[in-house]
Amino acid sequence: MPTVSGLGENRLLELLLAELPPAVRRPRGALSDALDADDCALVRPPRRGRRLLLKTDGLIAGVHFTPDTDPALVGRKALARALSDIAAAGGKPRHALVALALPADITLEFARGLYHGLGACAEEHDVGIVGGETLRTPGPLSLTVTLTGAVRARHFPGRGGGRPSDVLLVTGRLGGSFRSGRHLTFSPRVREGRWLARHFPVRAMMDLSDGLGADLPRLARTSGCGFRVDRERLPRHEHCTIEQAIGDGEDYELLLALAPDDATELERRWPIRFPALPLTRIGELTAPGAGEELPRGHDHFA
Amino acid sequence: MPTVSGLGENRLLELLLAELPPAVRRPRGALSDALDADDCALVRPPRRGRRLLLKTDGLIAGVHFTPDTDPALVGRKALARALSDIAAAGGKPRHALVALALPADITLEFARGLYHGLGACAEEHDVGIVGGETLRTPGPLSLTVTLTGAVRARHFPGRGGGRPSDVLLVTGRLGGSFRSGRHLTFSPRVREGRWLARHFPVRAMMDLSDGLGADLPRLARTSGCGFRVDRERLPRHEHCTIEQAIGDGEDYELLLALAPDDATELERRWPIRFPALPLTRIGELTAPGAGEELPRGHDHFA
Repeated sequence: MPTVSGLGENRLLELLLAELPPAVRRPRGALSDALDADDCALVRPPRRGRRLLLKTDGLIAGVHFTPDTDPALVGRKALARALSDIAAAGGKPRHALVALALPADITLEFARGLYHGLGACAEEHDVGIVGGETLRTPGPLSLTVTLTGAVRARHFPGRGGGRPSDVLLVTGRLGGSFRSGRHLTFSPRVREGRWLARHFPVRAMMDLSDGLGADLPRLARTSGCGFRVDRERLPRHEHCTIEQAIGDGEDYELLLALAPDDATELERRWPIRFPALPLTRIGELTAPGAGEELPRGHDHFA
Repeated sequence: MPTVSGLGENRLLELLLAELPPAVRRPRGALSDALDADDCALVRPPRRGRRLLLKTDGLIAGVHFTPDTDPALVGRKALARALSDIAAAGGKPRHALVALALPADITLEFARGLYHGLGACAEEHDVGIVGGETLRTPGPLSLTVTLTGAVRARHFPGRGGGRPSDVLLVTGRLGGSFRSGRHLTFSPRVREGRWLARHFPVRAMMDLSDGLGADLPRLARTSGCGFRVDRERLPRHEHCTIEQAIGDGEDYELLLALAPDDATELERRWPIRFPALPLTRIGELTAPGAGEELPRGHDHFA
């Protein structure tokens, strides 16, 4: 099986780019060809009245996926994680840059598989891949995706607007993501995030990547609040305990805070717009110090 | 010496962010706090009439710098490389995202040094650091910087507009960058690149990162041309041979192609605007196939 070593950077890039669908490789609004012909990508900025969203997010072999994972799912996950953050900002994703660091012994087939997965996910979400770089590394494979998006400033929820008595809700179900393989196949809640941000005065929103136990305290702290969670009501995936729903992480569901009346209105309208996806009231924000604590989820440096 | 391991991600981030100057940490035009409080950075897009430039670029320990390098210079280099690409696009740099993958045994002092160098370089170039992430890696330290910029579409030179008989010029001097340490201390030609793109009909421009021998063929190929270089005239750093000026790489000087009359006019005006920096005519573009070849510079995958 041929490896990427010895191919030459230009030839390798050519083979990788051939994996991208035309609409991803040469998207509307991209005015340069930074993938192989320019130093930078040149793109149209968001339309008037919109702000620019920026997110960078990396995957490392042995940390975020095991070496035997289907490379197309690895590529997919790299982009889907960044999409999940754009979703939490209520934004429409636009352009991606891909920085790929490849060990010399990676097969060409694996590298092409990564690009294939990236391309398929980008096409699904109408994202153009407009630039990047391919490096050789003495370490494990890593894949860093930077994604831009657009959102109206007044629709950007942020994490800091929550107030005591706001209702906390989550989309979907939690727990068991790594064990079940869902960490590779999850759907970033892009449509849901945009709809929520556009139609409701969402006071704070984030995506659950490190687990509710790590992420909810961040949202509450940024809002200057405490929180209370009704653990029995946490929407769990099959065969998951409450502890797993709190601590496992990699759910990529949305967590949001809304004033009580708005939450009630949202619960009425949600099932009509998104009938297949649960939306569950899991607790509330409180005055600072008046809430509870949760077992912490994943921390890379703890 | 304490390492980053065991600190916890939140505390580590707090210590790293404290290294950034206030104007870098909370730049004008940044509307969110993606560094520790939001999923995405939210920024004002470029002004009306400008396009958005996007660039991502990574450094890996053991590849782009040795482990005993001053971490502030490593942080500086990571941003300066991306600045060099924005310069080659004639752009004004705006916002940066920093993805840092840290091995567990890196000292806190080293990690803070990286951010210190990033912050100082960002301040010098009026760049806001508006987002990023910090990961743990089992491999070598890596630092991926994504940089945005703004440029008028008609000023973006790209690499594809060169024509036979265009004059090739380079800024500064070439060769010996790694050996001399200049690869850590070079000045990205941001002012020069903007001035060139604004005042002259530059037909093609790029920055010399892999060496003239690897980069010039890329510019020529994208322009559908060949090239001829007057090797004796190559502006070399002291103690460098012609071969080193062609092959060493990491010069981060600008290479540009201009129509002959425009080149003459540029040579008249350049020393008035940039008296301390040489600008040297090194050859010309030719019809495809009519030029010569150069020994190739650096190729990660060759």
